Amino acid sequence: MRLFLKRNVLEVHNHIAAEIGRSFRYNQVFCVNILGSPGSGKTSLIRLTLEALADKYYIGVIEGDLATDIDTRRLRQYNIPVYQINTQGGCHLEAKLIKSALENFDLARLDILFIENIGNLVCPAAYRLGESRRLVCLSIPEGDDKPAKYPPIFQNADLLLITKCDLEDHCSFDFKKVERDAKAANSRLEILELSAKTGRGREAWINWLDKEMLTVRRNR
Amino acid sequence: MRLFLKRNVLEVHNHIAAEIGRSFRYNQVFCVNILGSPGSGKTSLIRLTLEALADKYYIGVIEGDLATDIDTRRLRQYNIPVYQINTQGGCHLEAKLIKSALENFDLARLDILFIENIGNLVCPAAYRLGESRRLVCLSIPEGDDKPAKYPPIFQNADLLLITKCDLEDHCSFDFKKVERDAKAANSRLEILELSAKTGRGREAWINWLDKEMLTVRRNR
Repeated sequence: MRLFLKRNVLEVHNHIAAEIGRSFRYNQVFCVNILGSPGSGKTSLIRLTLEALADKYYIGVIEGDLATDIDTRRLRQYNIPVYQINTQGGCHLEAKLIKSALENFDLARLDILFIENIGNLVCPAAYRLGESRRLVCLSIPEGDDKPAKYPPIFQNADLLLITKCDLEDHCSFDFKKVERDAKAANSRLEILELSAKTGRGREAWINWLDKEMLTVRRNR
Repeated sequence: MRLFLKRNVLEVHNHIAAEIGRSFRYNQVFCVNILGSPGSGKTSLIRLTLEALADKYYIGVIEGDLATDIDTRRLRQYNIPVYQINTQGGCHLEAKLIKSALENFDLARLDILFIENIGNLVCPAAYRLGESRRLVCLSIPEGDDKPAKYPPIFQNADLLLITKCDLEDHCSFDFKKVERDAKAANSRLEILELSAKTGRGREAWINWLDKEMLTVRRNR
């Protein structure tokens, strides 16, 4: 009974997510669902990207948080459309929340939409949001055992971004181990390194974004 | 309907948790439920405590993970009873899992039981496990905005342990802001600082543990 109910609920979510995905393809919106633990560098990644690409693309952001609009206020300075979802304690974003949030965006005009999910390396993995690509941020201080210990979120991702690489000298972190464990969970996962502080890896991240946008537009 | 079901389910959990709590009090077991994001230093805290107290107290550990027994293997070297719970993707520990796990411990002999919860700053907050005290680890690199952004887990905690303090010089972290926001969520929350790497704050942590054990034994 419980399993049936759960599958049924997920089917409803996936149905709404598929509808959102169609709308993104129709409007040529490249949507990236950004996942990761609290403090893994999700907002810093968005800020870095806005600084690099806000002149080239029209970018929007949906911010997911349990409470507060701290990140939304941080992003408003870039003069882009930002919409805040507060889940009131909820541990992940769901497609129906995204569907409502999208009413606040001009999809026909939008090039890129970032969805910053709730900081949580577990629950958001199960919920599709209609995204074009799914990205997991894993910061150096979180430790190199995380892909082995939290496999589901890596299984469903397109890109693993190893963040806060400026802390490499102060933390014990084996990049090869992370790569091995993450690829064991998901062989097609791409992996990049980034430091929002020093700018290391910024170009490779922007190139990935450009490349994937092009692929999605070609395949729509 | 959904709310009713949810409340009903939580009531069942709380009922089992209360039963476990009675068993801890009867056996004079001081149980600490350790919560925090992935990589916030939960296992390191347990290791540091074992190194300091394994001669003084008989200590057991229940390790919660989605998958793997990495942390359990790390703790086995201390020659203490350790039991691994794998939630197969589940995002928090529940009282019924703890109840089964306890069959593997000699409660009458045990002084302290640490429960290392799933790395997740959201979901474990809602689930009581019969613990004597509840502790949240928040590491410096996670950022000083976390008590404001993830209030539920701080509302229900007894101690906030700010971990990885050795990274203080490499991360922007305002201790006063954390204290202000955490106390706004929970005015009776105690706050300590720790670096498992340098040993900073170790004595204060051990003193807290001793003090709280004594309080619980007096009040049982």
